[in-house]
Amino acid sequence: MSAHLLVLNAGSSSLKFALFEEDGRALRERLRGQVEGLPGRPRFKVDLAADGGLAADGDVAAAADAGAGAPAARQRAADRRWAPGEAGAPRDVRAALGVVLEWLHENVRPLSVRAIGHRVVHGGAVHAAPVLVDDAVFGELEKLVPLAPLHEPHNLEGVRAARDRFPAVPQVACFDTAFHRGHAFADETFALPREFYDAGVRRYGFHGLSYEHVADRLAQLSPKAGRGRVIVAHLGSGASACAIRDGRSVASTMGFTALDGLVMGTRPGQIDPGVLLWLMTDRGMDAAAISDLLYKRSGLKGLSGISNDMRDLRASDAPAAREAIEVFVARLLREVGALAAVLEGLDSLVFTAGIGENDAALRAHACARLRWLGVELDEAANARHGRDRDGLISAPGSRVEVRVIPTDEERMIARHVQRVLAQG
Amino acid sequence: MSAHLLVLNAGSSSLKFALFEEDGRALRERLRGQVEGLPGRPRFKVDLAADGGLAADGDVAAAADAGAGAPAARQRAADRRWAPGEAGAPRDVRAALGVVLEWLHENVRPLSVRAIGHRVVHGGAVHAAPVLVDDAVFGELEKLVPLAPLHEPHNLEGVRAARDRFPAVPQVACFDTAFHRGHAFADETFALPREFYDAGVRRYGFHGLSYEHVADRLAQLSPKAGRGRVIVAHLGSGASACAIRDGRSVASTMGFTALDGLVMGTRPGQIDPGVLLWLMTDRGMDAAAISDLLYKRSGLKGLSGISNDMRDLRASDAPAAREAIEVFVARLLREVGALAAVLEGLDSLVFTAGIGENDAALRAHACARLRWLGVELDEAANARHGRDRDGLISAPGSRVEVRVIPTDEERMIARHVQRVLAQG
Repeated sequence: MSAHLLVLNAGSSSLKFALFEEDGRALRERLRGQVEGLPGRPRFKVDLAADGGLAADGDVAAAADAGAGAPAARQRAADRRWAPGEAGAPRDVRAALGVVLEWLHENVRPLSVRAIGHRVVHGGAVHAAPVLVDDAVFGELEKLVPLAPLHEPHNLEGVRAARDRFPAVPQVACFDTAFHRGHAFADETFALPREFYDAGVRRYGFHGLSYEHVADRLAQLSPKAGRGRVIVAHLGSGASACAIRDGRSVASTMGFTALDGLVMGTRPGQIDPGVLLWLMTDRGMDAAAISDLLYKRSGLKGLSGISNDMRDLRASDAPAAREAIEVFVARLLREVGALAAVLEGLDSLVFTAGIGENDAALRAHACARLRWLGVELDEAANARHGRDRDGLISAPGSRVEVRVIPTDEERMIARHVQRVLAQG
Repeated sequence: MSAHLLVLNAGSSSLKFALFEEDGRALRERLRGQVEGLPGRPRFKVDLAADGGLAADGDVAAAADAGAGAPAARQRAADRRWAPGEAGAPRDVRAALGVVLEWLHENVRPLSVRAIGHRVVHGGAVHAAPVLVDDAVFGELEKLVPLAPLHEPHNLEGVRAARDRFPAVPQVACFDTAFHRGHAFADETFALPREFYDAGVRRYGFHGLSYEHVADRLAQLSPKAGRGRVIVAHLGSGASACAIRDGRSVASTMGFTALDGLVMGTRPGQIDPGVLLWLMTDRGMDAAAISDLLYKRSGLKGLSGISNDMRDLRASDAPAAREAIEVFVARLLREVGALAAVLEGLDSLVFTAGIGENDAALRAHACARLRWLGVELDEAANARHGRDRDGLISAPGSRVEVRVIPTDEERMIARHVQRVLAQG
């Protein structure tokens, strides 16, 4: 009987999950899904992997490490909504986990969970790698809540609920910050009195699981590119970019929190600290009001007044939609320049995550203004998202190779779980 | 009798001034000085221009537009301190102006002030050029105080005091923001709801008088360079960098306030907005306390724990001094990369202001890591601050020309005053 690895990503309003099957060291994704809309409008969805998640057998080796299947190729296996106030509807992460496990037990037979991997946004300054969670580690992680008050408590509630349901199963915390922990002091600190650095006010960087997956995949596709100077642009509803040299992160656009850097769906990215002082003094806003503005009402949504979703802006004729995209691109270009400065040049540029993988127009828009760095796009390959060229979308002879590499944070977590278990 | 132009720069604790003499359209600096240490420890200093500010005649044409004389070549003409509590000591900008005018009347005979130019940090979204101040304009400028509460009130107090003393003399307000007013919307806006842009929350950019002077001087030295893609790094106790194309500013590292961008003497430059939220919630700091931290206790001073002055850090053996310099350089490099991205390449890099003009080691440190952009320094020329090569410090054949160009905001203001008067 093959064992399963369950991956959980508990957020403020959702519990995402994925189930992998192990065949020796190979990993085969069987399904992924989520309970979203917590607490008021819960919805439970499961999608089977492209190669048939519920089939007990199959060509596991071929599927292993192939990256995320395209969403279109997936098959919806469950989609349930609860009526408002309906009894039995999940209202929190713990209840959502119950719904997920009930479904898994019914539909994956036999279900044999060997370990559970958790996405945890913040590992602080200490955790440069995933960690097996025991009581001591859990206590340490709780101390990081003030560094990520909007995310960390939900992540940890997922860990707590899973430990309660599977007390004998190893739980592995995988951090979005860990991949960035080798940054030089000069790139990690803010120019504040040293006491703040010592108190944990640092540029942590996030999306590390995505970057690690993409860096690994790039090195598979081209060992030479994997050793070079790489910028990965993770462009989703959260967005950041990462400078990678020889497979290791050397700088990121995200800093202390997930607010900084690139424009996001509802977050502004880089902003003058004086704006916050002005919001406090001129508008009388407190931390909660400013936090709401910056986390939920800014970015593409705030600029456009239309949507936080790039696809909606692409579909809109409104000038504000076009302008929001221009601001998104302008900030992306500045940050690519800044990261190229850290790397002292650029060999590869990689686009990933929802926008990065699917918005060919945005990639073309950005790359047309990166010719000065040596970027030359192959328009046809870009239009096909590089799918027939292992993601390569730059023209032959382009000094900088440009690729689309689908991210797969869940698979990265599952691989980390395997490694942690192998270490004993 | 030749007429004088008086330049005033009124700040929170000082009144700086310079006196220029007109010979036709040519401008000759006679002296400059300041009353500093307001209100508690006033000190009044006057330095004569290198060519002898008090001499009634001389080679005016040769001195014109030569840029600021090196401080070492100046001659101290006055240096007065008042004992604590001493009667007659100036306690505010108005009284300081009285001290300055009394000295000028005694030492510059005949003193004939044709017009007064004022440095005003903020001209808002409207003023893309200097403006003759009448009651209506003054009232408009007062409305900008919330955008620069730490600087604008003092600037305007200088204007008010000068108008009271010279009611019949034209007063010209010259703005640090004006040079940047042609930026594209995508570079000027933050990714906030549009209402904030409309309310004036924009990336204004500062140090515009310095950039304008340097851009003009660059175009004199090399018309080709003046038409190209230029980054000017204004590195003083305040610091920013500006991307200039064909003599016009297209982007700046400073944003809504003078806090953003590069590391400064006591200001942090770019910082994650989440840090301010953390200061509010975790440390219970209010706007005044955060403002004090970010304006007065951060930057080189906060990082080093030693000094806000780069010269002190250079002279120190402490690791924290070296680290502070490294952070300063790291942020400078990232912003140069970001501005190069806006310009889509780089033809000229210019260093100016106190650190930029005098710290050869810093320029060498930065330029060594800008080779990827095509920067190649001539070490010997750099050590001489390019003084025998019209400021050029790059090696022959360097794809990017690098120069040291002394800034002279006072002369720029005097030239603006001439232009405004000439327009009628």
